[in-house]
Amino acid sequence: MITQIKGGVCAAKGFKAGGIHCGIRKNRTKRDLALIVSEVPAAAAGVYTKNLVKGAPILVTQKNIANGKARAIVCNSGNANTCNANGIEIAEAMCRVTGDALGIAPDDVVVASTGVIGQPLSIDPIAEHIGELAASVTSDGSAYAAEAIMTTDTKKKEVAYSFTAGGKECRIGGIAKGSGMIHPNMATMLVFVTTDCAISAEMLQKALSEDVKTSFNMVSVDGDTSTNDTVCVLANGMAGNLEIADEGADFDAFAEALHAVTVELCKMIAGDGEGATKLLTCELSGAPNAETAQTVAKSVICSSLTKAAMFGADANWGRILCAIGYSGVFVDVNKVDVSFRSKAGEILVCKGGAGVDFSEETAKTILTESEIDIVVALNDGDASATAWGCDLTYDYVKINGDYRT
Amino acid sequence: MITQIKGGVCAAKGFKAGGIHCGIRKNRTKRDLALIVSEVPAAAAGVYTKNLVKGAPILVTQKNIANGKARAIVCNSGNANTCNANGIEIAEAMCRVTGDALGIAPDDVVVASTGVIGQPLSIDPIAEHIGELAASVTSDGSAYAAEAIMTTDTKKKEVAYSFTAGGKECRIGGIAKGSGMIHPNMATMLVFVTTDCAISAEMLQKALSEDVKTSFNMVSVDGDTSTNDTVCVLANGMAGNLEIADEGADFDAFAEALHAVTVELCKMIAGDGEGATKLLTCELSGAPNAETAQTVAKSVICSSLTKAAMFGADANWGRILCAIGYSGVFVDVNKVDVSFRSKAGEILVCKGGAGVDFSEETAKTILTESEIDIVVALNDGDASATAWGCDLTYDYVKINGDYRT
Repeated sequence: MITQIKGGVCAAKGFKAGGIHCGIRKNRTKRDLALIVSEVPAAAAGVYTKNLVKGAPILVTQKNIANGKARAIVCNSGNANTCNANGIEIAEAMCRVTGDALGIAPDDVVVASTGVIGQPLSIDPIAEHIGELAASVTSDGSAYAAEAIMTTDTKKKEVAYSFTAGGKECRIGGIAKGSGMIHPNMATMLVFVTTDCAISAEMLQKALSEDVKTSFNMVSVDGDTSTNDTVCVLANGMAGNLEIADEGADFDAFAEALHAVTVELCKMIAGDGEGATKLLTCELSGAPNAETAQTVAKSVICSSLTKAAMFGADANWGRILCAIGYSGVFVDVNKVDVSFRSKAGEILVCKGGAGVDFSEETAKTILTESEIDIVVALNDGDASATAWGCDLTYDYVKINGDYRT
Repeated sequence: MITQIKGGVCAAKGFKAGGIHCGIRKNRTKRDLALIVSEVPAAAAGVYTKNLVKGAPILVTQKNIANGKARAIVCNSGNANTCNANGIEIAEAMCRVTGDALGIAPDDVVVASTGVIGQPLSIDPIAEHIGELAASVTSDGSAYAAEAIMTTDTKKKEVAYSFTAGGKECRIGGIAKGSGMIHPNMATMLVFVTTDCAISAEMLQKALSEDVKTSFNMVSVDGDTSTNDTVCVLANGMAGNLEIADEGADFDAFAEALHAVTVELCKMIAGDGEGATKLLTCELSGAPNAETAQTVAKSVICSSLTKAAMFGADANWGRILCAIGYSGVFVDVNKVDVSFRSKAGEILVCKGGAGVDFSEETAKTILTESEIDIVVALNDGDASATAWGCDLTYDYVKINGDYRT
């Protein structure tokens, strides 16, 4: 049984976190450096952007956790440390000063950066303040870390669950940042998950790699795949369960809890998409196979025209059929049914690929809510998928018309 | 030698055109039915959307020009006649009433529709007014036809050129509509081209199919591939040149003139993208092959973040590197140079994948112009490509938040 609990990345035993303003950002009220630390060595797993342009911190993190373990995560916002000539050098320096401050090896540190691309990142404010940050981490500091990794996000994103593995109560929790440049491909945004469940690095990586296919890879805000997407999980084993080292009931319990965390973070990211006023969920069923289900659901969520129609509470289902038609996988469009659903009700707008009579007034009421489900039935098999996105608004343009200057 | 001339689809000998308000649209000042007629039978070629959801008119047009010939094009705006149970029946009725009005066979008529998807189209206003329209076509009526096919377009799109083939002066001209739902795949929007050049249907189709790869397929406004995209060319041979029936100098001259028409229409469509304030051109060079060049150039033009930055005149070149990195084809990002150019000047912002010092003030001045070139050099081969797009603005959201109701 999975139960939602408080505490974010500090919910699991033995994890502390914190976040401070070190001076990367000009705004002194905005925290810009986060730290998450495990009392004991932890198994580590990560998935990363497939963008060919990769942030320097990703290359350093991949090297550092190649041995399947880590003890700390350091992350700054305000600068992505990407497309800079000295990027690797700076990312390595971040690990070194963090290791020094915590008394651990530099290669036990996971490093991440987020913010503007192509502007040199100075190590100075980080080196100067990392000691202060290391001294300030606490077991209720998750919210400070969650705040320190935000860029254009308007809301902190943290969640935690408890679950049972090997007869022991375990905890798993995560924080995330992500609002624009969100269209993950095998990884996403910045997401840090901690658990006290004992699990081998190999099984942790297996669980994570499988999970992202139906969680972060099914989110899109704007179709732009970031250069710095990283999801990293640390498992320190302090729950005392027998280490999960292969598949079976315990692995399934862990995977289920991990999925509860990642799906909740997905919804938070999509709902807080840049400029968004609405969380859109495409619930797709009746597909001949999982790949078709996922491709079509994501195509609907990514359509700029559908997103703008949802902003305007306009039941323009033709745009949904259109997005189904150009997804790139084969669909028999003459079998497709489409409904809109929210807490105000549900309305069928298209059956067998053609429009049905419906009340525009009722549709408007349903689409005026802040969480909209676009329910698509392909009626051509048993596979299903869920994808998350948001509406396209004036504010998306405003935020991105002048982000850098 | 190619010379730009006036006359749009009526520039070529023996073509007449017109456009009227027949009543499909409520706004009585907006023309909504267009007709283009050739005095004599013409060779016909077409390319169409790859969207699995295809407008009924496309299916009827494909059947009608399967024999390689046609004499007239009828097109309404205000309703796409797509995803309607009786779509085919209505599209066939449009050909029948047009054929009757002109005294030609119904299967010599090309039919197209554009506008909202999924609302039944009544034949009544068309049947009632087609006689009036057929009587009103003239050899200077191209602008009326261009206006009658507009939807959210703010500008009429027409262009014509004269060229020489087989020692004879030939003319070729076209009209287009397209502003949103623009991301063609092997075809695009609605484009009608006429020429008096004598060319076999087979060679006409070959020229057109080849041309769209570097013209309409390289345009994107919003990443949404329409259900009704159609490009159709009629060639009536009235220039008196020896019919072009195989490759050679004459075919090349024709292909060059066709490309002049299509590229000009591409720029008009991109520059008139929904809500657009700027025409963006990505000039990409130094690619290892044409496919890489085209894929990368289009990825840059499609990036919502790049489009919003261009709206804000923000030289955020990191977003361009990002879009190059997620295009799906391999690029050595450490070799990439990026400049911005407009009539106010040119500025290098990225060299070898990393930022260079540049004047933000100069960049702002360059990016404040209404036509911006994003100049990308991959420095990894000899292939090049050009793609056209537009900025992402508040008005795109406004137009699409409430298009239907």
